[in-house]
Amino acid sequence: MKSDALFVQDYYTESFAWCYGCGRLNAAGHHFRTRWDGDTTLTEYLPKPEHIAIPGFVYGGLIAALIDCHSTGSASLALYRRDGHELGDQVLPPRCMTASLTVDYRKPTPLGTLLQVRGTIREMGTRKVVVESELLANGEITASSRVVAVVAKTLSP
Amino acid sequence: MKSDALFVQDYYTESFAWCYGCGRLNAAGHHFRTRWDGDTTLTEYLPKPEHIAIPGFVYGGLIAALIDCHSTGSASLALYRRDGHELGDQVLPPRCMTASLTVDYRKPTPLGTLLQVRGTIREMGTRKVVVESELLANGEITASSRVVAVVAKTLSP
Repeated sequence: MKSDALFVQDYYTESFAWCYGCGRLNAAGHHFRTRWDGDTTLTEYLPKPEHIAIPGFVYGGLIAALIDCHSTGSASLALYRRDGHELGDQVLPPRCMTASLTVDYRKPTPLGTLLQVRGTIREMGTRKVVVESELLANGEITASSRVVAVVAKTLSP
Repeated sequence: MKSDALFVQDYYTESFAWCYGCGRLNAAGHHFRTRWDGDTTLTEYLPKPEHIAIPGFVYGGLIAALIDCHSTGSASLALYRRDGHELGDQVLPPRCMTASLTVDYRKPTPLGTLLQVRGTIREMGTRKVVVESELLANGEITASSRVVAVVAKTLSP
């Protein structure tokens, strides 16, 4: 499917594209990018050498951040597809925010290898999506997560 | 109490002081620091301008990272005190890792103001501590969390 090669964060409306985790317009940020891979969602990221917990392992905060943006991106993709759209359509996808994030750290995540977060859509309401994901390093699951994401309203500070 | 002015991360043994979130030896990191404030634990942090979700608000990944390191630091402080120690003693405090992290994002967290995470020790076993915390911005609770932390064994990559 063509849209499997496209990343949802590249289609967030400009005012929602500044996130330090996944915003394409945030020069300092991580630039996490999430796409469909069949019926699951996928975010891949290679942590930087400084993202350590203890030497050789990725720190939990980066894992939480990666899962957070992956999950809101997954929720956005799911709602968009539910509404009959695929990335590349004229209509832009919705932007979701995290209401609740749970990460279970099952074993230490090694540094220096590409991380994959694979998401499954568990529930979908009008504005709310539950995404469960697994973090894989070298094919091994090192963390799992459950995120409740909701469609963002426009906010002003 | 004198030790309320001391931060647990300043006493982590050197091999455990590299965390991007809270390691004093990680030049690129956030340097989160956690201390007792009476019977609760406190971590204060001023996010950087680039740590945005959408303009004006802090991104969820930073909040999760802050809560993560705050909670392991709180667990370390709690176990250390339980064992009769206060920071400044000859014995170093234990280093804890996160087994499970849950963050409920109750409302957007404004950027540009000092954040406070205040933790309460809910359970304490031999090696396991449950820490519940609230994130405050301008005195308002914007997120709450529950973390299960465990004493780290030494790991090699």
